[in-house]
Amino acid sequence: MLTKWLESSGPESDIVVSNRIRFARNIKGIPFEIKATETDQEKILGMVSYALEELNVLKNSKLLGSQELTPLIIQSLLERHLISPDFAASKQKHAVFINNDETLSLMINEEDHIRYQVLSSGLDFELSLFQINDFDEQLERELEFAYSTELGFLTACPSNVGTGMRASVLIHLPGLVLTKEIEKVLRGILQIGLAVRGLYGEGTETKGNFFQISNQQSLGRSENEIIEIIEKAVRQVIGYEKKAREYLTQNAKIEVEDKVFRAQSILRNARIVTSEEAINLLAVLRLGVTIGIINDVSLKTINELLILTKPANLRIYYNKEMEADERDEKRATLLRNRLRGEAKKNGQN
Amino acid sequence: MLTKWLESSGPESDIVVSNRIRFARNIKGIPFEIKATETDQEKILGMVSYALEELNVLKNSKLLGSQELTPLIIQSLLERHLISPDFAASKQKHAVFINNDETLSLMINEEDHIRYQVLSSGLDFELSLFQINDFDEQLERELEFAYSTELGFLTACPSNVGTGMRASVLIHLPGLVLTKEIEKVLRGILQIGLAVRGLYGEGTETKGNFFQISNQQSLGRSENEIIEIIEKAVRQVIGYEKKAREYLTQNAKIEVEDKVFRAQSILRNARIVTSEEAINLLAVLRLGVTIGIINDVSLKTINELLILTKPANLRIYYNKEMEADERDEKRATLLRNRLRGEAKKNGQN
Repeated sequence: MLTKWLESSGPESDIVVSNRIRFARNIKGIPFEIKATETDQEKILGMVSYALEELNVLKNSKLLGSQELTPLIIQSLLERHLISPDFAASKQKHAVFINNDETLSLMINEEDHIRYQVLSSGLDFELSLFQINDFDEQLERELEFAYSTELGFLTACPSNVGTGMRASVLIHLPGLVLTKEIEKVLRGILQIGLAVRGLYGEGTETKGNFFQISNQQSLGRSENEIIEIIEKAVRQVIGYEKKAREYLTQNAKIEVEDKVFRAQSILRNARIVTSEEAINLLAVLRLGVTIGIINDVSLKTINELLILTKPANLRIYYNKEMEADERDEKRATLLRNRLRGEAKKNGQN
Repeated sequence: MLTKWLESSGPESDIVVSNRIRFARNIKGIPFEIKATETDQEKILGMVSYALEELNVLKNSKLLGSQELTPLIIQSLLERHLISPDFAASKQKHAVFINNDETLSLMINEEDHIRYQVLSSGLDFELSLFQINDFDEQLERELEFAYSTELGFLTACPSNVGTGMRASVLIHLPGLVLTKEIEKVLRGILQIGLAVRGLYGEGTETKGNFFQISNQQSLGRSENEIIEIIEKAVRQVIGYEKKAREYLTQNAKIEVEDKVFRAQSILRNARIVTSEEAINLLAVLRLGVTIGIINDVSLKTINELLILTKPANLRIYYNKEMEADERDEKRATLLRNRLRGEAKKNGQN
């Protein structure tokens, strides 16, 4: 798997899986999507594709248009956090550009004409911001965006006006969930104007104790200011999560070990595993690795398995049409092979 | 552990854990327990103890009186199927005799003056009947029992009058439970006048798909006839269970493997296991062994663990007062050590 942001190489990556910065932009002179005709949308597609070609970013990368975007591919990109649920659900003429290590993606004809994001491992907004600004500067050489000197970038939804930026982290908080402090901490996050969501953004469930924290507003502050606010809040949450893990290690050692060893042994031995069970067990295993109970599996492997075991990615991995029953078997096989294989490689069992 | 009937050495012991024959007897000239005074009960205790001494059966065996029968010991004997729930609950002056390999036990002052039972492994009523008849003949040399030439042996409850005999099997029917045929089969058992009960007899729950099948009546038929009826019925149930296991192996292989490997891996890795979970997991493991999915653990070990992991036996095994929390940890440790140890011994993992 080439997905670089799953590598668990960034700072704080025992708690923060990844961070993401997304810019929303609209091309000057073309109506927003809500009013855009099919011709407008084709024009946008054409202009952006041309720009990407001009920028010479298409080698080793993919521009997937309506033809390539089969339901399976769409689902798999959603599972890999490369497109949004809205983009996946929309029937519009759209396309998505994905760079070779999947750290950058750009949706054409989503809610805005274009939305692009940079994903990186751990809590490294600096890296992501540097990369997206670099890409943004290049794009602006080719495209002129709708912009007001008073408001900043103009977007379809008022909540994106201004910087057009959303910054978020995918954070794993099993310690706060187990110590039952999660609600208090999340309430604090909401109070300072940030949003908390599930694994796949707005309106999705929280599973396996993974949460998304992001900024709500993008107007009235600079990109750097917004990132400062969210990074500060996330660092606080990381502090609480670390304390919770410490508390658990000291005061509920056996209960946590029980949970972790059960999860590990089921992952290594089950013959049928649903997608939901996989997330939950991998999340517990992840906790086990970060607090040192498990030391024969890497966070990178767990992060990758979290994506690979999802329905569409599993189908693509096995290159095979499968009903849900067969998927559950293949998922169990993949988990077994990867988690036993890695343990063996590390000289343990 | 010396408990011979857990050895899984008898016929059909992949399905029938054990068989049991119990005789109820009352001493001529002393009122039934319901009318007996404390003096009567002391007299019974004295007469039976004397008889046992005369018979020279007390070496290597135990006669446990009110002093020895602490709540812990009573509970442990109940868990080992050596006394009845009624005996355990009663506040009367009572005692119990248990032979050295725990195949024979005799309760004094239960519902009847004395009740004795022989337990043996698998479906071997012939062996049990031979042993209990042998013991019975010896006892009759020392004690005169209340007997009517018309009715046979007289007992406190009319359902025991006649032979005073109850014959039962402890049978494991996971196949019929998984194929959902169990109710139909049990209805058939009830229709021919036999009783079906849980793991610990009348009024107890069925756990881990273990059932007790026994005769209801003991009047109007000879001991051999009663045993013939129950053995025939049990053989039919065994036939159904075997077919169910065959069906599962052929048509739900992966589902059964999933269940079995999960149970095995949890038993080998959990750090906290409740009594009820232990029964259920061991029962699934037992199925796995009998259908050949698991081959590094013996049925004997599983049968023994089913008893050893019960609360009172666990306390005695570790020779330590324990609260429920600590018991759950020790239970997990015992299961882990025994099941990993045995696997290692058998050269597997």
